[in-house]
Amino acid sequence: MSVRSQIRRMSTKLPTHNPYFKLSGKDIWTLINETAAQAEADTGKKVVNLGQGFFSYSPPPFAIQAAKDALDNPMANQYSPSRGRPSLVQALSRTFSPFYGRTLTPDEIAVTTGANEGMFSCFVGFLEPEDEVIVFEPFFDQYIPNIELAGAKVVYAQIHPPKDFDTRTVDGDEWFIDFEELESKITAKTKMIVLNSPHNPIGKVFTREELLKIGELAIKHNLLIISDEVYENLYYKKHIRVATLSPEIGERTLTIGSAGKSFAATGWRIGWVIGSEKLVPYVTAAHTRICFSSPSVFQEAVGSAFDQALTNGYFEKTRQEYLHKYAIFTKVFEELGLPYTKAEGGYFLLVNFKKVNVPEDYEFPPDFQTRAKDFRLAYWLIREFGVVSIPPSEFYLEEHTHVVEDCLRFAVCKDDHLLEEAVERLRGLSKYIN
Amino acid sequence: MSVRSQIRRMSTKLPTHNPYFKLSGKDIWTLINETAAQAEADTGKKVVNLGQGFFSYSPPPFAIQAAKDALDNPMANQYSPSRGRPSLVQALSRTFSPFYGRTLTPDEIAVTTGANEGMFSCFVGFLEPEDEVIVFEPFFDQYIPNIELAGAKVVYAQIHPPKDFDTRTVDGDEWFIDFEELESKITAKTKMIVLNSPHNPIGKVFTREELLKIGELAIKHNLLIISDEVYENLYYKKHIRVATLSPEIGERTLTIGSAGKSFAATGWRIGWVIGSEKLVPYVTAAHTRICFSSPSVFQEAVGSAFDQALTNGYFEKTRQEYLHKYAIFTKVFEELGLPYTKAEGGYFLLVNFKKVNVPEDYEFPPDFQTRAKDFRLAYWLIREFGVVSIPPSEFYLEEHTHVVEDCLRFAVCKDDHLLEEAVERLRGLSKYIN
Repeated sequence: MSVRSQIRRMSTKLPTHNPYFKLSGKDIWTLINETAAQAEADTGKKVVNLGQGFFSYSPPPFAIQAAKDALDNPMANQYSPSRGRPSLVQALSRTFSPFYGRTLTPDEIAVTTGANEGMFSCFVGFLEPEDEVIVFEPFFDQYIPNIELAGAKVVYAQIHPPKDFDTRTVDGDEWFIDFEELESKITAKTKMIVLNSPHNPIGKVFTREELLKIGELAIKHNLLIISDEVYENLYYKKHIRVATLSPEIGERTLTIGSAGKSFAATGWRIGWVIGSEKLVPYVTAAHTRICFSSPSVFQEAVGSAFDQALTNGYFEKTRQEYLHKYAIFTKVFEELGLPYTKAEGGYFLLVNFKKVNVPEDYEFPPDFQTRAKDFRLAYWLIREFGVVSIPPSEFYLEEHTHVVEDCLRFAVCKDDHLLEEAVERLRGLSKYIN
Repeated sequence: MSVRSQIRRMSTKLPTHNPYFKLSGKDIWTLINETAAQAEADTGKKVVNLGQGFFSYSPPPFAIQAAKDALDNPMANQYSPSRGRPSLVQALSRTFSPFYGRTLTPDEIAVTTGANEGMFSCFVGFLEPEDEVIVFEPFFDQYIPNIELAGAKVVYAQIHPPKDFDTRTVDGDEWFIDFEELESKITAKTKMIVLNSPHNPIGKVFTREELLKIGELAIKHNLLIISDEVYENLYYKKHIRVATLSPEIGERTLTIGSAGKSFAATGWRIGWVIGSEKLVPYVTAAHTRICFSSPSVFQEAVGSAFDQALTNGYFEKTRQEYLHKYAIFTKVFEELGLPYTKAEGGYFLLVNFKKVNVPEDYEFPPDFQTRAKDFRLAYWLIREFGVVSIPPSEFYLEEHTHVVEDCLRFAVCKDDHLLEEAVERLRGLSKYIN
């Protein structure tokens, strides 16, 4: 049989079921990063990449040193227990117990291979076919395939922007949930609700009142709460952990954290899940099958880094630095009169570009022509200004992309000089604003 | 509502569907490692752990140094492209292209978070409900939940031991496949067949003839071949890559490799999948959702290590060291007259203990009472001799555990002095042999 006829036959074995495996469309991160690389190649000029939320700088020296020390320990280069190395589990307990007002036991903590795999382990560990999961729009894009790969169905609820967010700068707080609308999405099949606070891409930190209402709904309808709090150490108003609001809420909540976000180490792939000892074993069981164990050297390093952060003021210092970064970067939007949502946590800024007129005859490649308006805005900004952002309609269902089609999300987790450079470049937008 | 009644209600939300999430039974690695730790606590004496296949020593200095160098590169601490860092992809191409007789392109290589997640990404990327996957018994335990989590059904075929393997030492080669039996397992629903060579736990390296027959069956029935070759650099007779046998076989084969096995770095969590550019994008798409990306520092380190290994003779030196380790360790079984299967690859030794009489009144904890005889043998060896092994019936369906119920699997990827110590301790078995 010829190779050609083999290829024809084999194509019948390629998967057809899962929309996320349609290979015609690229994931947003690949699409934007490749577009940025192409712009650099075409123009010979470095872009300022404020798109993906990686840090433009190193983890702190005390964390790097801890990783180097771990490399010198033979057993820190071998498999760790699936549930996590005792040194990291203990450090996480020391760090987070104060928020719970009691000592977290090792059975309440599971180490995962990044927060992404932590979320996925929660979904795989608990979800069964027919289950429904409530996810708020806008959502972090990975949630959706992760829930669907676990066999369950996503049901969308809304975080609504204030009506006039395209004409004035608003607080993250002003984005709101309609709780009647939310409850109307709950059915007998609903098994869990996914939260994200501080929120990506809005920058909203959920209020105590909002979290209590969500917790009450979870109790009333017997739901699990999966709380993605990866930006928990970057907050500019008080961050409240939903799991700590009451024992009844806590026992049904799994909280996900990230060393990548906490220590500017997105490439280390260390995350964790904290929850009741009744729930955590399901997460660990799934994680054991998915990844088996997580990078040992970085578990040691993150454990050491958390212990040092308890006394060296690292997180407080980082928060101050981020307030400064926001101050640098928002300056240009104040100058241009472009409204944005003031971030209360995390490291993103959602800016409304409705006033900006992209030239009507501008040419866009196919991947951008077929998407919402913000994709073309992002493309134009990369090509004409050398500044990379993410089109936030990626975080919405296609039928709701209009909500943010005039917006772009910028990541400020970058060196100050890069933010200054972006400001300088974005000043050029003024001639496209009436 | 009281906490107690909440807990009762919530229990209805715990998952019931997947046998691998029944939490009453521990996975084999946790069970054996915890038993070993308990023995140490009870006796005050260190066990010699030849159970799990982690190395008792460090990765080679040139790999450790490469990891330290990468830690000093800010961007090597941040996210990598989902498909892998260019430096590692290029190094893998330089290393493996010679076996294929042509230059592997980046589109034929996907970096994964360990070989385990590489296999899982292959299953998630290709399998759909109703699909069947042929797996040989004995199998590496993770394959089964990984295939079932991807929604497909496992169909078992056999690698048969020679009839008299309990009375004489045999070659790995003598374990055989009945190809009529194998073909009888293939149905219209069969989508893939999983191979493992060098084989864990047998130590068999599949012959060219066997691989050709499997390849022909795959072509005839239009199957994908998932070839787990994580021990590819540890062989003591010629290791043949099934993907290189013909273009027709190669285009339907995905080959999985492991930095953990190649560089004694099981805690680094770097693996890869090599296959046709038509197949690899499905693996990367799944990997992107499961783990998003793999540890960046270790991608850099492994890329550098492979490049150095091309000229520094590391793999050849390692093979010689392993022949020496086998020579040290098999000595005691020669002395005792206990037959084993001579390993042709990998780092395991499967020893037949049929001649050993475990005292009939010996007491076993529940986790060991309910399993096949080899579990009790392993327990007794840990408690009475301080030597840890793995009961290989874990790698069989319950109805086939009798095949290896007299056997134990030892990992020799340990320092020579530990192997010598194990030999010394196992000499004490002589009084339990008639």
